[in-house]
Amino acid sequence: MKMGQGVEWAIHCCALLASLPPDCALRLEKIAEFYDLPVPYLRKHFQALSRAGLVSTTSGPRGGYRLARAASEISLLQIYQALEGKEPAFRCNEIRKQGPTACAQKLYPGACNIATSMWRAEAAWKSELEKVSLADVLGEAATQIPQARVDATLKWFEDVLGG
Amino acid sequence: MKMGQGVEWAIHCCALLASLPPDCALRLEKIAEFYDLPVPYLRKHFQALSRAGLVSTTSGPRGGYRLARAASEISLLQIYQALEGKEPAFRCNEIRKQGPTACAQKLYPGACNIATSMWRAEAAWKSELEKVSLADVLGEAATQIPQARVDATLKWFEDVLGG
Repeated sequence: MKMGQGVEWAIHCCALLASLPPDCALRLEKIAEFYDLPVPYLRKHFQALSRAGLVSTTSGPRGGYRLARAASEISLLQIYQALEGKEPAFRCNEIRKQGPTACAQKLYPGACNIATSMWRAEAAWKSELEKVSLADVLGEAATQIPQARVDATLKWFEDVLGG
Repeated sequence: MKMGQGVEWAIHCCALLASLPPDCALRLEKIAEFYDLPVPYLRKHFQALSRAGLVSTTSGPRGGYRLARAASEISLLQIYQALEGKEPAFRCNEIRKQGPTACAQKLYPGACNIATSMWRAEAAWKSELEKVSLADVLGEAATQIPQARVDATLKWFEDVLGG
């Protein structure tokens, strides 16, 4: 089971947008530059984030992407689901109903308990990701991003946002 | 994020082995027949289960696969990991260290907190799957498998295991 690389990119990029000065937006090319990511792939992921209502765009010379709501209102689960969808990782094909000892479908009283166990685990995973907002990510990052990078980023914002 | 179909197959097939009469084994072709699954793919999955020490083979006319330990000692997590490996679904490529504001790697004090949050969720998922053994699956299945299928399966065992 492998998660698309876009999830890592999207969370980091949304965290970058969350750290912008108020009322500022960043063009896609600049977001890609900040993390040294390829623009075409990142564009696809931002289209998904936009469709999910997590980011929005403003036009004009100072236009670009910004978060569509407060960083505290965007969870890691929402970003994950924007990119990878809401389908469970485990798909139940009801093989318990197949084979030479098969009996009428209607005789089975409920969901397959193997599927139920697998989905219970996925619910625990989702619940953890739902608890973590972009605001939490930024708060924790404050102790993990070296001061040299913080200073360089503030300087980069000045250059890129045009003072 | 999508789990290989083999996980569903392997759990069901191990549950079938767990329900065999004592000291009996089932040939791969018969296991495949029971759930109407393609033999070549199932063989690959059973090789993985065997490498992980979850099933073993016996030779001879009544030979075949059996569980390598008690059903209560085999968890859904072990079956999952036998097939899909132990690599986390979320891969951290440390993109926080890239781009025009990059600073020396050694200045970063610890793991990226985004990765840590993603892995915490995976730990919760693993913990749920670790709690469920094949014995639990069989116990629950008793209320979910129609009596007609149970009876037909006992009859099938008689035919296949050679009385």
